Amino acid sequence: MGIPNLQIALDNSSLDEALATIKEAGPFVDIVEAGTILCLAEGMQAVKCLRALYPDKIIVADTKCADAGSTVAKNCTDAGADWMTIICCATIPTMKSALKEVKELQVELYGDWTFEQAESWLDIGVTQVVYHQSRDALLSGETWGEKDLTKVKKLVDMGFKVSVTGGLELETLELFRGVDVFTFIAGRSITAAEDSAQAAQDFKAEIQRIWG
Amino acid sequence: MGIPNLQIALDNSSLDEALATIKEAGPFVDIVEAGTILCLAEGMQAVKCLRALYPDKIIVADTKCADAGSTVAKNCTDAGADWMTIICCATIPTMKSALKEVKELQVELYGDWTFEQAESWLDIGVTQVVYHQSRDALLSGETWGEKDLTKVKKLVDMGFKVSVTGGLELETLELFRGVDVFTFIAGRSITAAEDSAQAAQDFKAEIQRIWG
Repeated sequence: MGIPNLQIALDNSSLDEALATIKEAGPFVDIVEAGTILCLAEGMQAVKCLRALYPDKIIVADTKCADAGSTVAKNCTDAGADWMTIICCATIPTMKSALKEVKELQVELYGDWTFEQAESWLDIGVTQVVYHQSRDALLSGETWGEKDLTKVKKLVDMGFKVSVTGGLELETLELFRGVDVFTFIAGRSITAAEDSAQAAQDFKAEIQRIWG
Repeated sequence: MGIPNLQIALDNSSLDEALATIKEAGPFVDIVEAGTILCLAEGMQAVKCLRALYPDKIIVADTKCADAGSTVAKNCTDAGADWMTIICCATIPTMKSALKEVKELQVELYGDWTFEQAESWLDIGVTQVVYHQSRDALLSGETWGEKDLTKVKKLVDMGFKVSVTGGLELETLELFRGVDVFTFIAGRSITAAEDSAQAAQDFKAEIQRIWG
């Protein structure tokens, strides 16, 4: 079992806010994500700036692409992204065309996806999925539980590198002990912390304590 | 039965190309859409520029929002969009939170959505859906047919204002005769035409001929 990565999600509505957010925590995370809100607000300029600031880190463009996979993926790659996200209800041709233009594609699991669909993603060469608690679901009171862990484990067993995200707190990590999580994606639990550099280091230390 | 609107989809990868594209055809369409490719490439600046150029037209931000509905919708509205799109696999809480921040929300029908889901969108106040042939599906050889028309008619009967898009040519419109289509969304059949102003006028004339 590997040691999970720590990814920071920047879901700011402006580039300057995103840069202020990442400045402190950036050095301590493995992967920097231009979140959907940021991509839609500032476009690929956001990805370009993150690439410029962190030339040696993995940069993810969380486009949640649903169509025009080839063009969206090419634009992400041209801007400096290593990985791009695609929504689970995108068609197989969309996923295939995106796969040709990025290093790795992450399927974002929202709503009513099935394991049968997941098999079809593996078949075309998708290597990663992102398992979510949607922000809006969290806001309406849902939280992490056994049903999530079961699904995450099954996806890992199928062969996916599984990232986990949505309302992750430091204390949530223990829930995943023994599960081969590829990446924990944290947003506000780092970015909204009083000392976000410390918060990022605390996440890294907790991951090391549990999986190290 | 109303006369369908004509919407132009701008799926350029840069703002300057989008403006060059819309310049000729813009005056002849009812609705101007900042396509997903454009929104992701240039952010809300694209929507702001379209609003500035067409103060009296309906502007759509085709974000295909999947999460963080409230923030994405607020950013679209702040940029001047009237309508925003949301992907069909978004959760109901995401749709609800987006609905509060835009004039109208359009659910984009991709992949394996169901009419049962569509009922749940009506229940929360969604008024519009966009029925697609995905660009990538078209590229892999699929085309419009009876199964699409049946679904479109059913969605109209359920009470949705239904927009129709994906590889629409002037000749495709006749297929929809007798169907209460709310909006035809055309992309390259107008934007890539030698004379895109004429192409837009031809679409308007054909809509008038069939539904007028």
